[in-house]
Amino acid sequence: MSSDICFHVYVENDTCHIGSHYDDEHFDCGKKNCHRTKTRYPDGSVRLRNPNIELMDQDILYHLALGSGSHDLVEMFGDIKFVCMGGTPKRMENFAHFIMKEIGHKIPTGTTLMDISQYSYRYSMFKVGPVLSISHGMGVPSIGILLHEVIKLMYHAKCKDPIFFRIGTSGGVGLEGGTVVISDDAIDGMMNHYYEVPMLGKIVKRPAIFDKRLVRELRALAHPEDPYETVTGTTMCTGDFYEGQGRLDGAFCDYTETDKMEFLQLLKANGVRNIEMEAIPFAALTHHAGIRAADVCVTFLDRLKGDQVNAPKEVLEEWQRRPQQLVARYIKSTCRPKGGFLSTATDL
Amino acid sequence: MSSDICFHVYVENDTCHIGSHYDDEHFDCGKKNCHRTKTRYPDGSVRLRNPNIELMDQDILYHLALGSGSHDLVEMFGDIKFVCMGGTPKRMENFAHFIMKEIGHKIPTGTTLMDISQYSYRYSMFKVGPVLSISHGMGVPSIGILLHEVIKLMYHAKCKDPIFFRIGTSGGVGLEGGTVVISDDAIDGMMNHYYEVPMLGKIVKRPAIFDKRLVRELRALAHPEDPYETVTGTTMCTGDFYEGQGRLDGAFCDYTETDKMEFLQLLKANGVRNIEMEAIPFAALTHHAGIRAADVCVTFLDRLKGDQVNAPKEVLEEWQRRPQQLVARYIKSTCRPKGGFLSTATDL
Repeated sequence: MSSDICFHVYVENDTCHIGSHYDDEHFDCGKKNCHRTKTRYPDGSVRLRNPNIELMDQDILYHLALGSGSHDLVEMFGDIKFVCMGGTPKRMENFAHFIMKEIGHKIPTGTTLMDISQYSYRYSMFKVGPVLSISHGMGVPSIGILLHEVIKLMYHAKCKDPIFFRIGTSGGVGLEGGTVVISDDAIDGMMNHYYEVPMLGKIVKRPAIFDKRLVRELRALAHPEDPYETVTGTTMCTGDFYEGQGRLDGAFCDYTETDKMEFLQLLKANGVRNIEMEAIPFAALTHHAGIRAADVCVTFLDRLKGDQVNAPKEVLEEWQRRPQQLVARYIKSTCRPKGGFLSTATDL
Repeated sequence: MSSDICFHVYVENDTCHIGSHYDDEHFDCGKKNCHRTKTRYPDGSVRLRNPNIELMDQDILYHLALGSGSHDLVEMFGDIKFVCMGGTPKRMENFAHFIMKEIGHKIPTGTTLMDISQYSYRYSMFKVGPVLSISHGMGVPSIGILLHEVIKLMYHAKCKDPIFFRIGTSGGVGLEGGTVVISDDAIDGMMNHYYEVPMLGKIVKRPAIFDKRLVRELRALAHPEDPYETVTGTTMCTGDFYEGQGRLDGAFCDYTETDKMEFLQLLKANGVRNIEMEAIPFAALTHHAGIRAADVCVTFLDRLKGDQVNAPKEVLEEWQRRPQQLVARYIKSTCRPKGGFLSTATDL
């Protein structure tokens, strides 16, 4: 490698050294292929890897019902430090209220949180001080559209070094229901570690890489007294919930229970701890944009024991708050605005 | 081919004869590989191509918040003849109210339509007599999950010969915004005519085939006096809205406007009239289940002229009612319950 290349965050042939990270001190080093320089301005605000956007009169973020011409995005969103995403509008509305309480954020008397993107009818978005809470729907394309538009939103709003979290639900592989899994690696349904995007008739592969430091930091925030396990491991991201995850209970099934169990045991032997439907583009697009990101999911069942999600509703609701609690601990540990709103530093 | 094979609906090596159809008179012919026999009981009710479901104590349709043990699905849904799907909950709620008026369906004084799946927080579902109106979210995985569960719902409810419609929005290729496109063929981002599902580590290919007769019947219902064009053609189904559709305005862009235009012109030359994100699994899974289905989309822009959806909100709302009107004409033309509710037979 040439000395013109930045070693910290070097990307070669779309393969990134696992363990590369975005050191807050490391920017604008001037060397070739510096991921940080490609994705950040010297002040830490998000730079887009698309030269077209800054030449446009206005940029309509269609699926968010926002636009750079119709809204003052810097004023509205310039203070965002954390973007939290999850599947359903309801979960993300609940998370917004939860994080408001956790970080002690106050809104004026007589006001309430509202869904900023309600007229998109696509995603729901809530803002609580430095935190955005957005629903991403289900599956790779749905979270992919959202990531494109939220990354552009970060650029338009001049957000500095935002961190993205996915707060999800998943099927566990050899883990009890209610276990929290922090993804340290992602594979797709064919065991590939990259996001394949057909682009103008050719497949482009983007490496799906999570921020290792963020994984470690989150792992360290799991409490020994939490009444559930928090683990790290590989997350499998599929394009289908039924046949794509080896379930026997879809509308169609051409394989046997033995075939299914062999496959799940193979996954387990290869370090797969859970299966969901968004990890690959979430890891790949945030990595490509130089944004630190983590996927924190709770398991709703152990796939080695069955296919159907049949725990009672109240139990599932309690379980899905667990990733939210971990992410809230992280946000509380790092977010220190004027006057400070850490309620208990000892929590961290 | 052996004479044991049913020629009408013969599928060989996952390649279906284009033009195969499900003749209402043709069932239980007893020949090998008869698609009709695989997917229907003699009375026309939906048979599942999955032997596991009938052996289960109960089947939880998790993303619909329904179950065969917790709900009397035959009583609730046994009269369904049409399942209409579209992206957003709002559009499908509007469609439910629209179709109620169109078919003259009455509900008791003091009642109103409600979202049957509201506590799934995933999809919204409304029922108006023989019509289900359901939101499918965005992208292949989201509509795929819904199709698995709705096909199972048709089975549990013993629905007879249901017809599925997708009422969607899309980008046009050489078509003015507001044009209605009835898909007669579907390709994915790599120009394949099938739905690829990684299943237990191997790719399974399902042919994406629309019902030709239904396409013709719908096309015949376009009025000469409609103030917009209604066309048939190939629909491209992509996994991404930005780079996957050759847009220049995503968070990332590594190609030029010239590359993009060459690609779009290639699509046009190959009969592609519009681009959306659900056609492939919609065609493939309904075809595999032996369910007649049609994808009717309006175009929101001409991709040969730009990337951004920037028509005014009111215009977009009027445009997205156009596919609804066509599907409503079809439903009115075929649906003759006791007492009849056709308002004007001359409409047809």
